Amino acid sequence: MVSTGGFVTSLLTSFVVFLILVALFTVLSRMPANYNIYYPARILNGQGVPGGPGKKKPGPFAWIREAYMASEDDILAIAGLDATVYIRFFTTVLEILGFSALICLPLLIPLAVTSHNNADQYAASSNNTYSNIDNLSMSNLPPASMKIWAFFAAAFWVSLVTYYVLLKAYKHILKLRVQHESSQTAEPQQYAALVRDIPKPGAHETRTEQVDTFFRQLHPGTYEKCIIICKLKKALKLYKKLVKARKKLEHAEAVYELSKRKGGEGKRPTNKTGFWGLIGSKVDSIDYYKEQIKELTPKLVVEQKRVQEEEQEGAALVFFNNRRSAAEAAQVRHAKYAMEWQVLPAPEPREVVWSNLAKPVWKRSVTEAIVYIIVIVVILFYMIPIAFVSTLTTLNNLVKLVPFIKAIVKITVLNTVLQAYLPQIALVLFMALLPRLLLVLSTAEGIPSQSQIVRATAGKYFYFEVFNVFLGVTIFGTIFSSLEGIKTLVSTTFSANELVDLFGSKLPPVASYFITYVALRFFIGYGLALSRVLSLTIYHLKRKYVCKTQTELEEAWAPGAFSYHTNIPNDLLIATIALCYSVIAPLVLVFALLYFAIGWVVNRHQALNVQVPDFESEGRMWPHIHNRILAALFVSQLTMLGYFAVKKFPYAPVLIILPVITAAFALLCQKNFYPSFSTVSLAVASQEVKEGPSLPEVLVAFTPACLLGPDQVKDPKYEAADANISSQIDNDIADAV
Amino acid sequence: MVSTGGFVTSLLTSFVVFLILVALFTVLSRMPANYNIYYPARILNGQGVPGGPGKKKPGPFAWIREAYMASEDDILAIAGLDATVYIRFFTTVLEILGFSALICLPLLIPLAVTSHNNADQYAASSNNTYSNIDNLSMSNLPPASMKIWAFFAAAFWVSLVTYYVLLKAYKHILKLRVQHESSQTAEPQQYAALVRDIPKPGAHETRTEQVDTFFRQLHPGTYEKCIIICKLKKALKLYKKLVKARKKLEHAEAVYELSKRKGGEGKRPTNKTGFWGLIGSKVDSIDYYKEQIKELTPKLVVEQKRVQEEEQEGAALVFFNNRRSAAEAAQVRHAKYAMEWQVLPAPEPREVVWSNLAKPVWKRSVTEAIVYIIVIVVILFYMIPIAFVSTLTTLNNLVKLVPFIKAIVKITVLNTVLQAYLPQIALVLFMALLPRLLLVLSTAEGIPSQSQIVRATAGKYFYFEVFNVFLGVTIFGTIFSSLEGIKTLVSTTFSANELVDLFGSKLPPVASYFITYVALRFFIGYGLALSRVLSLTIYHLKRKYVCKTQTELEEAWAPGAFSYHTNIPNDLLIATIALCYSVIAPLVLVFALLYFAIGWVVNRHQALNVQVPDFESEGRMWPHIHNRILAALFVSQLTMLGYFAVKKFPYAPVLIILPVITAAFALLCQKNFYPSFSTVSLAVASQEVKEGPSLPEVLVAFTPACLLGPDQVKDPKYEAADANISSQIDNDIADAV
Repeated sequence: MVSTGGFVTSLLTSFVVFLILVALFTVLSRMPANYNIYYPARILNGQGVPGGPGKKKPGPFAWIREAYMASEDDILAIAGLDATVYIRFFTTVLEILGFSALICLPLLIPLAVTSHNNADQYAASSNNTYSNIDNLSMSNLPPASMKIWAFFAAAFWVSLVTYYVLLKAYKHILKLRVQHESSQTAEPQQYAALVRDIPKPGAHETRTEQVDTFFRQLHPGTYEKCIIICKLKKALKLYKKLVKARKKLEHAEAVYELSKRKGGEGKRPTNKTGFWGLIGSKVDSIDYYKEQIKELTPKLVVEQKRVQEEEQEGAALVFFNNRRSAAEAAQVRHAKYAMEWQVLPAPEPREVVWSNLAKPVWKRSVTEAIVYIIVIVVILFYMIPIAFVSTLTTLNNLVKLVPFIKAIVKITVLNTVLQAYLPQIALVLFMALLPRLLLVLSTAEGIPSQSQIVRATAGKYFYFEVFNVFLGVTIFGTIFSSLEGIKTLVSTTFSANELVDLFGSKLPPVASYFITYVALRFFIGYGLALSRVLSLTIYHLKRKYVCKTQTELEEAWAPGAFSYHTNIPNDLLIATIALCYSVIAPLVLVFALLYFAIGWVVNRHQALNVQVPDFESEGRMWPHIHNRILAALFVSQLTMLGYFAVKKFPYAPVLIILPVITAAFALLCQKNFYPSFSTVSLAVASQEVKEGPSLPEVLVAFTPACLLGPDQVKDPKYEAADANISSQIDNDIADAV
Repeated sequence: MVSTGGFVTSLLTSFVVFLILVALFTVLSRMPANYNIYYPARILNGQGVPGGPGKKKPGPFAWIREAYMASEDDILAIAGLDATVYIRFFTTVLEILGFSALICLPLLIPLAVTSHNNADQYAASSNNTYSNIDNLSMSNLPPASMKIWAFFAAAFWVSLVTYYVLLKAYKHILKLRVQHESSQTAEPQQYAALVRDIPKPGAHETRTEQVDTFFRQLHPGTYEKCIIICKLKKALKLYKKLVKARKKLEHAEAVYELSKRKGGEGKRPTNKTGFWGLIGSKVDSIDYYKEQIKELTPKLVVEQKRVQEEEQEGAALVFFNNRRSAAEAAQVRHAKYAMEWQVLPAPEPREVVWSNLAKPVWKRSVTEAIVYIIVIVVILFYMIPIAFVSTLTTLNNLVKLVPFIKAIVKITVLNTVLQAYLPQIALVLFMALLPRLLLVLSTAEGIPSQSQIVRATAGKYFYFEVFNVFLGVTIFGTIFSSLEGIKTLVSTTFSANELVDLFGSKLPPVASYFITYVALRFFIGYGLALSRVLSLTIYHLKRKYVCKTQTELEEAWAPGAFSYHTNIPNDLLIATIALCYSVIAPLVLVFALLYFAIGWVVNRHQALNVQVPDFESEGRMWPHIHNRILAALFVSQLTMLGYFAVKKFPYAPVLIILPVITAAFALLCQKNFYPSFSTVSLAVASQEVKEGPSLPEVLVAFTPACLLGPDQVKDPKYEAADANISSQIDNDIADAV
């Protein structure tokens, strides 16, 4: 699909852009004015920046050394378990691909180069074009060649390595999770459980009485109290208004202060009361917002009371006086009908999605079904434009379709650059629009915790990417890469045999397209992530023109967490591509290794210095990642089975054993490890607690901010993460590049 | 497949045989000598037989009245929950088919009869043969006829009725199960849990210490004691020898007693000590067996001690001091790795399969995989002979193939009878060989309880029957029922279109084959079950020639339990056939209704008078039955979808909605009801206990007989059922007829 010239140009330009971005980072991150952008996590942790006051200025590449040298415990302490698991994902894939490369690169590439099937095919018919890169792949082997034995052995090697590394990683992460759960310092969620689908209460019974009676009877001596889920909508609206008014008041006071400092009496700020501050009567801002706060505060108190009395719904958070009882309650069926009184482990206070908790089970089932249908439609529907794009954006095809751009194409440099980037840019744009939609859809499913929403989104996005980017490009790339392919498809004598031959000759060339795709992603993607040019620009603009108070400033540089819901599927896609082509076109391994190596360094740096987690799911992302790496392996094994058959290798059917082993391995891990990621075992929950929150603290931690009384103050570490996740979404487009 | 003449003859002969068998039953069951065979359950319960001493002889059909009038509570009290569930299965299918027949018979059959597609087809080509029965089915409707609308509506009606009845039945049986579990009279298994896959103990720790330490720590205050599973083989062998010697001694003493009564000194019996009592030196039996018992008893005591000290394995039964704790422990994960320390609900003492308990998880997984492969092979392999048989046994085909039997065929009566029965008899013979194999395979899977082995066997047997009898006969019957079909298959211009047309015309005629099959099964099958001619003959022979002692006599008439592992798949097969043809060939419904109505009466009679349960799984068979009725509905919906399309009905695709609803309904029931059949909910387990076994009683109940000390006596109601299940297996051939 890409000529050798285009291939090299693509790699070189990607690399140049990467160098520029790294240089930018090196220069900008050393300016004190930018510390808030480049070291927000350190500042929030109170660690101080590397070149801060009283410290020696570090060298320009000290960050690499720091990222490389940091131990897992450092990352665990600073960035939390989720970030550690994310980085362990890079380590794991690096190990898998590294071990695979040890065999595939030195053994398979020489075998491929010394054959000349491509040249022979070209001699037979000039339709069978090929580039020099294709000579490094299995396509250069003549059918039924004895050399295929080496590729056959490599297929087994790659699989075995994957099983071994994944097993090791799962054990390691489980160890980390168990350490966390059995820590002597307890956390609020360890004393809580979530109860959903509570049946209608009796006639003269409030929800609270109902839940208290039920749990006191079944857990005598250990059940303490409950919080009934209620409809927050109105109280939340009032609370938001109040918070906004407070911020505006603070802002107005700061503006007044500034104007006073300029000399004289100062000028009291004013604003218009109408729509968006654009129309309406002009008022004194300080008086106006003070008045608003005075008015809203008692209203909120009334509403809080009303909501908790009248708008209680069929779900609750229940609290126990020890970790063991809470862990036990979350695993035991309480009622005769399993769909009533469903008890689950409580999410961390910060990640509770309050509005989803009380959705009844039938509603959840129905929306889930609808969401699945929509997602399937989206996956299938996106296939069409992407197929078009991957055809049109081959420059030669463009010229065929739109002849007048011929003049532009004649400029050689521009031609090469365009040829190299057009398809990728189109693809990236398509990808950027989707994550927000998937996040909204996943939320609609009625999932009770944000980390699970993130996982659900990541899962959907991964399927999307595999079907559309990976399969889409492979299939359409194969067919449309040559006129012959299109003819085969259109011709009336279309037959399965021809199609198989087509895939046999055109599958490895698609690999070179993926190499440029991988290179683009890591050079540009990691360059942008490291340099944070977008965040930097926005921060400086806001600082100059908008922010007046400390709070506003802090909000302007708030770093946010890793966007797991887009990052993980993207990384998994690269892993899928690497595994699938590891044997057929081993060159892919080099670039995939680079991707994960640079990613490993950059993400460790980000975890230590930039990103601040919104919530902590205690590594529950790992089973998700583990299963998808296995799925990638499964697909790669099927691809190899097919490709070996196309190459007329008589022992190809033996490869059937590999997907079977993969399925068995996946099942084994699911049975042995997964339960420890969804519930806490008794042995772990029975560990002694030395330090933990008191019951009132636990209750406050789980009460939404808008329901807290004026005397109840929430520990900031339990504050809900709703605000941050939506800001994350806005960064999707930036992330996708 | 069957001409009208053959069809009627088949039904008539079946009916005549049935009448003869019922007459036999009526006569024989009124003879006091046969009471042990016809009323064993009553005798064992101490109820006395209907015509017993001091009672009026009942009328010849009183048993029908009694079976009809008995309430569910009567059956529950006498025959247990499993038998009640089995009978409820008949009620459920009767309701489904009854409601379906309400619409299908009066509406669809007149519509079919008033069309003449069959005649038109025959006029077009005399290859398109048909019988008069086929005119009652949908095949008689011309393609794209407006009448198909009625069949379309009926398809929806049958599905809705099935959902409604199944939901009602599931709720009802769950109610019965919960009543049983929350009964104030507790049972030993409610205080126990089964622990499997215990890791290796520490160096200076016995298994007992290991289990005690672990459970005492995690269940402080509620854990009591454990029984470690050990290798029984040697102790069991000694125990069996001892029991045999005791029986032989009893027999020898009885024989001596009898000979004395004949006059004089009497003759002391003798026997040979060698192989099977055929060779070796002659000894005095009474002395010989007394000597043996004296020798074996201390040996067994030594072996009991050795086994419990040296041969302990990685599984245990653990006991708690209340029902709630045991129920809770069986649902909670205990260890970090979910595959270690697996805790499950304990089976009833009688149904524990001791030798399977300690099988480690890897061994269970591997044997399970191997068993599945063997079962799949068996299902596919059996297809071939059955396909042959269903071709060959059509008399016309037989004559074509083996011309010399033409002479026999010319005798009209014989011809008709043969034509009617040949295929069915062949099928029944094939079926009879299988259940034992499947039972052995299921046991090898490492299942811990007999009821689960029975369910696993029933599942395999059902798949087998659906694939081979139902699909096999449908597909091969369709193709081989006419020369044209065979020609189509063999011809080189074989095309999918022709095949579809073939199915369109030949599917309903297959239905008439199934009608004769159903009629054979119920007339002959229930006739044999009721008259018990086989058991009766064996009993009288044994009584006359073998049995000398009371124990021997009781063993000779021991009735055994229902053979659920063959009965349920057989009944489900009939339900599948009935559902699949309910709309396409509604006449099937009449015979299926008869099957389940007679079955209902006969099985109620058997439950009240004959069968004695070996063990009680508390209705755990129901989810199995429920799911398979739904699977049958699913298959029927797909069949209808296909057949409506073949009939060129433009709205056929709308029918896709039905299998989707079935899948959703199955999922819903699985989620809501199933958990209550695998574990006990807290609400149920927390019910107060008024009367229950003491801990020593529970321990004795769960200790295998061969490990009990001379002072420990087991309540007969907890005695293991091993012996009985093997005798059941021997009856498989009798059952299959």
